[in-house]
Amino acid sequence: MEHFADRLIKCIRSKRSSAVAGLDPHWAQIPERIKSDAISRHGRTLAAGAAAVTKYLTGIVDAVASHVGVVKAQIAFYERFGPHGLEAYRRVCEHARARDLIVIGDVKRSDIGSTAAAYADAHLGKIEIGGETLEAFPVDAVTVNAFLGSDGVQPFIDAAAKNGKGIFVLVRTSNPSAAELQDLRAGGEPVFLRLARHVARWAEPHCGREGYSCVGAVMGATFPEGAKNVRKIIPRSFILAPGYGAQGAHAADLKPFFNEDGLGAIVNSSRAILFAYRRPEYRDRFGPAAWQRAAEQAVIDMNEELRAAGCQPQTKPEGA
Amino acid sequence: MEHFADRLIKCIRSKRSSAVAGLDPHWAQIPERIKSDAISRHGRTLAAGAAAVTKYLTGIVDAVASHVGVVKAQIAFYERFGPHGLEAYRRVCEHARARDLIVIGDVKRSDIGSTAAAYADAHLGKIEIGGETLEAFPVDAVTVNAFLGSDGVQPFIDAAAKNGKGIFVLVRTSNPSAAELQDLRAGGEPVFLRLARHVARWAEPHCGREGYSCVGAVMGATFPEGAKNVRKIIPRSFILAPGYGAQGAHAADLKPFFNEDGLGAIVNSSRAILFAYRRPEYRDRFGPAAWQRAAEQAVIDMNEELRAAGCQPQTKPEGA
Repeated sequence: MEHFADRLIKCIRSKRSSAVAGLDPHWAQIPERIKSDAISRHGRTLAAGAAAVTKYLTGIVDAVASHVGVVKAQIAFYERFGPHGLEAYRRVCEHARARDLIVIGDVKRSDIGSTAAAYADAHLGKIEIGGETLEAFPVDAVTVNAFLGSDGVQPFIDAAAKNGKGIFVLVRTSNPSAAELQDLRAGGEPVFLRLARHVARWAEPHCGREGYSCVGAVMGATFPEGAKNVRKIIPRSFILAPGYGAQGAHAADLKPFFNEDGLGAIVNSSRAILFAYRRPEYRDRFGPAAWQRAAEQAVIDMNEELRAAGCQPQTKPEGA
Repeated sequence: MEHFADRLIKCIRSKRSSAVAGLDPHWAQIPERIKSDAISRHGRTLAAGAAAVTKYLTGIVDAVASHVGVVKAQIAFYERFGPHGLEAYRRVCEHARARDLIVIGDVKRSDIGSTAAAYADAHLGKIEIGGETLEAFPVDAVTVNAFLGSDGVQPFIDAAAKNGKGIFVLVRTSNPSAAELQDLRAGGEPVFLRLARHVARWAEPHCGREGYSCVGAVMGATFPEGAKNVRKIIPRSFILAPGYGAQGAHAADLKPFFNEDGLGAIVNSSRAILFAYRRPEYRDRFGPAAWQRAAEQAVIDMNEELRAAGCQPQTKPEGA
């Protein structure tokens, strides 16, 4: 079984891309045509919502799959549709994996030991029923909220290490109120740096052939001044940096998230890719119905921006 | 529309109980007979797992409904069965609401603003599809992890206030590693007290007729020394205290969680009620197959213990 970080690095190199395409189905922004088709088949039901989401998101996966190695599905936008929505999440993730993409489930789960273990089973592990081993949600990695401390995180690390999967622990988020708790000074440094030191400790025993761990961190792309310190504390961890594009971070902000080798970070953009067809620059060029072509071009453009800013591996892609 | 806290207080008084029965389906502890029945109908599938969980948990709800006003479903144990498991969660919650119980979804969700709003829609709100207003998960309140700060919590507060529902914000959890972040000293006091001050601020504008807010807190029952301080900081909030029974807290530990009026706290016990049929004291008395009778008796005994320790409202039940 290949180590998660080795597989991640292979994907980044083969696509020459540190970008992550976010698969977050904001209902209001899905094309009306897709929604009305789903409603005509399923009525005005949560099943119709889930069907529209599945249709749009699998189409986006197909559009971007040649240009990125990683996608991230924000489960909240699927949970809105109840159990049907979770089935849509499962299908979208399965579709992305069938295209050889690494799938991150952005679930930000947290709980105490035995309950965290149940979440880890659901999202990174297996469950046995009558001797049959089954997978609940087919993803390669999840995000984890570590507010409950080590014993709430350890079950996720154990499941990841056992199954060739990964976790990304929230260290410093990109939202305006993040500072309220994450930047409190405790023992001479902000809480998020204390947390980064925990991540370093959790990451160390779980490194792959390339020297990177299956335990990574989440750090908002809108907070480059914090990234320099965190980067030094967790040299062996990948940083998942959300907030590119719609949330205001630019390629130049991202450099401090990367190591010298051009690895160690992946940069997520959700709405700016997913709903590129609504942005004037792409709508004017491709027309208002070309949502797949617009998403593809948005990812190509993001790759260019990241490369121009030096945010990509320095080694050549495998096979080049 | 009745305020969440008023409805909660009415339930506590009418059952003369501050207890919460936890509905956490640990697979290994569900009776073999129920599991094999489900497998014979659904095969060795996640659907079989979900069917067994639904059967057992709705049976437990029926067994305890006369003795408690509140149940708490830990969603992690349902997520293990994938989308089928979430359908089981939905059904168990719906069943409990049909028995006039208040249902707390223990989901510990957290995210930044727009994503937190999607979670709030899913778990406390409604979603509109083609003009139809639909409910994804039928619960009355959820637990929330506030590590991301106010803008990650506000969407939950807004949805709760709008829909007559409630939230319980994690302040200090009951697990051994909770201290790593929650007890860090920042500005002269531990992080969890800082967090309690935020809860007080969030709770204040949202009080019902009885003076209690729809914004509550979660505070592990195993940490009574912290409860005294938190109780003073958030006089208008209900404290949900998990950890009674299996996690080691006793009725005498719970007194500091309550206000002078005998209100302000609800005490959760999960495994000790749910799987009482496995405990020698009940197995010997009722036989190994009487899982409903054992759960009922465990809840009756817990009520007695809490009442004996003064953990119940001092006013008489309505209609008495």
